[in-house]
Amino acid sequence: MQQKTIMDYETVRLDEENGAVVIIDQTKLPGKIELISLKTAQELWDAIYLLKVRGAPAIGVAAAYGIYVLSIQIDTEDYETFYREFVKQKEYLDSARPTAVNLSWALNRMLRVVETQREKPVFAIKEKLRQEAAAIQEEDILVCKKIGEYGLELVKPGDGILTHCNAGQLATSKYGTATAPIYLGQERGYGFRVFADETRPLLQGARLTAFELQSSGVDVTLICDNMSATVMKNGWVNAVFVGCDRVAANGDTANKIGTSVVAAVAKYYGIPVYICAPTSTIDLNTATGAEINIEQRPAEEVTEMWYQQRMAPEGVKVFNPAFDVTDHELIAGIVTEYGVARAPYTESLKEIFRKKENAGNI
Amino acid sequence: MQQKTIMDYETVRLDEENGAVVIIDQTKLPGKIELISLKTAQELWDAIYLLKVRGAPAIGVAAAYGIYVLSIQIDTEDYETFYREFVKQKEYLDSARPTAVNLSWALNRMLRVVETQREKPVFAIKEKLRQEAAAIQEEDILVCKKIGEYGLELVKPGDGILTHCNAGQLATSKYGTATAPIYLGQERGYGFRVFADETRPLLQGARLTAFELQSSGVDVTLICDNMSATVMKNGWVNAVFVGCDRVAANGDTANKIGTSVVAAVAKYYGIPVYICAPTSTIDLNTATGAEINIEQRPAEEVTEMWYQQRMAPEGVKVFNPAFDVTDHELIAGIVTEYGVARAPYTESLKEIFRKKENAGNI
Repeated sequence: MQQKTIMDYETVRLDEENGAVVIIDQTKLPGKIELISLKTAQELWDAIYLLKVRGAPAIGVAAAYGIYVLSIQIDTEDYETFYREFVKQKEYLDSARPTAVNLSWALNRMLRVVETQREKPVFAIKEKLRQEAAAIQEEDILVCKKIGEYGLELVKPGDGILTHCNAGQLATSKYGTATAPIYLGQERGYGFRVFADETRPLLQGARLTAFELQSSGVDVTLICDNMSATVMKNGWVNAVFVGCDRVAANGDTANKIGTSVVAAVAKYYGIPVYICAPTSTIDLNTATGAEINIEQRPAEEVTEMWYQQRMAPEGVKVFNPAFDVTDHELIAGIVTEYGVARAPYTESLKEIFRKKENAGNI
Repeated sequence: MQQKTIMDYETVRLDEENGAVVIIDQTKLPGKIELISLKTAQELWDAIYLLKVRGAPAIGVAAAYGIYVLSIQIDTEDYETFYREFVKQKEYLDSARPTAVNLSWALNRMLRVVETQREKPVFAIKEKLRQEAAAIQEEDILVCKKIGEYGLELVKPGDGILTHCNAGQLATSKYGTATAPIYLGQERGYGFRVFADETRPLLQGARLTAFELQSSGVDVTLICDNMSATVMKNGWVNAVFVGCDRVAANGDTANKIGTSVVAAVAKYYGIPVYICAPTSTIDLNTATGAEINIEQRPAEEVTEMWYQQRMAPEGVKVFNPAFDVTDHELIAGIVTEYGVARAPYTESLKEIFRKKENAGNI
């Protein structure tokens, strides 16, 4: 019997029998594939804050199942009591990470179920919540696959692709966003050569992207973030695919810290940068990147790593933003499940949403 | 009594009494200030290869003292025997690191002493070698100070300065190259705000630059390499100062991996990049950066760090160049001990060498 690989597990799933959300603890990868069960609000909040589950789409799915799991623990048949408690839990989960729009997007979708189904008995509302969370997950899989199809049209067999952080299967329910064209290309024998930035400080590229691509047989090479110019100058990179946490109406894109460094370097070397963005991460209510709240994380993420010894002087000041914003002018295209938006994004992103409305559900 | 800080020690010194080169073991910093004594060819080679002493100028000084220490161990009064053994040891030391030109530059300077003093008895040649190594070190200090003076003219009080890797006191005998304007500015109350890139994979910025600047009371903030775009976009950086390992005749500059990433990002944000280059690192015999041999180092430097656990999948391919080459068009100026060279460098670097010849010794 073959040993299971990471690709045999679901990043996030609902354990209905035990009323829990089951995730792969991504802080243990690649050393150990450990599944953990989340039942309480505290456990769910910690899992999101501590990046045990991470990646905008996966956070959305985990939060949707999470608020469902919390809702079945609300022991009342009174709608108003249920509603108040639901909102309280929803706001608590929503506070775990400020930058990724999917967290509040998924929680708001769940809240709308509670509001629109208010005439139903509470037990029926809970069942609707379960269905909605499952729908969010199913849509995530379909959306990633469509992004893969559109992304694949932007490259050709044998191309070199650079990616930053992890916008892979581990960041979504399946396929990933930035990795979706890579996985679809892999199925079709495209023979891509992929470069994975390690992505300091938390090394999602080294620990997760290199891991999941290698598990799938993709030709992947790990580099430090500061080696991107070298691989680009060597002619090894034809396109950059990255995910995103929030896209503003003008195309400015918040994604993992370092994305805008890759984008500026790619611009210098004339290499196109594509943002792989489910429409759930596009926030037309945010006019530009300047309005996006950038999460600051603890200094210790940067200072504590050098063979378990402290690697920076005691008391040194550290600046540790978890994300940055890439100027829309550095972006060659935004790949969504409804096609590729091109500059000017203020127009093209609206057009994407018109397509979405016309299509109904994907 | 005040505790000694890193600034109270010499990066490299000759211990005449014991016939040894004494260095600070930089792989132990910032946790521990440990001095080690190098006497054998193997110890010297290892210290250079393993980065116990690093930074182009410091490597030059260590190699000069090192070949002197080895020369006094050559037990012969016969010139030809002495010469053959000297050349053998010199070539061995020279093989420790290929990119920094100072290593071979210093060793060749020492070899010329042996060749031009061939009429002298061997014991007298050895004394000349000691004097030459001491001269290389004294020149290093003077050169760094001059670079500091010229560099200081390029910035103004209160400016933000970004630096990459360590081209500091720990990379030279004193002042450093990229840090020389910072230290001189500090003495004169310029109140610079310095950002130190941590510099993956070996974290010289975190372990050494942040450490030595903090010890000297400089306002320094540590960032990951992939945060440079963020601090530049925020308007916190007025100039980039970096060192170099080799400058080609056209201005292309080999320096620690990531320098060309910083340079491309700085270009996008309109921030000048200055290379601080003793003329000993300028190699007019190398026409362009394409001719510079880039050292590749072990994959484990990248993969082994995540809290002492392996942080990348077993068997993953890793690309780990120790340096990169920054295109001359990304460089606003090359700061030498004879002034600042500006584009076109093919002309201005020759002019720097004409000034050097006219000046005699600095």
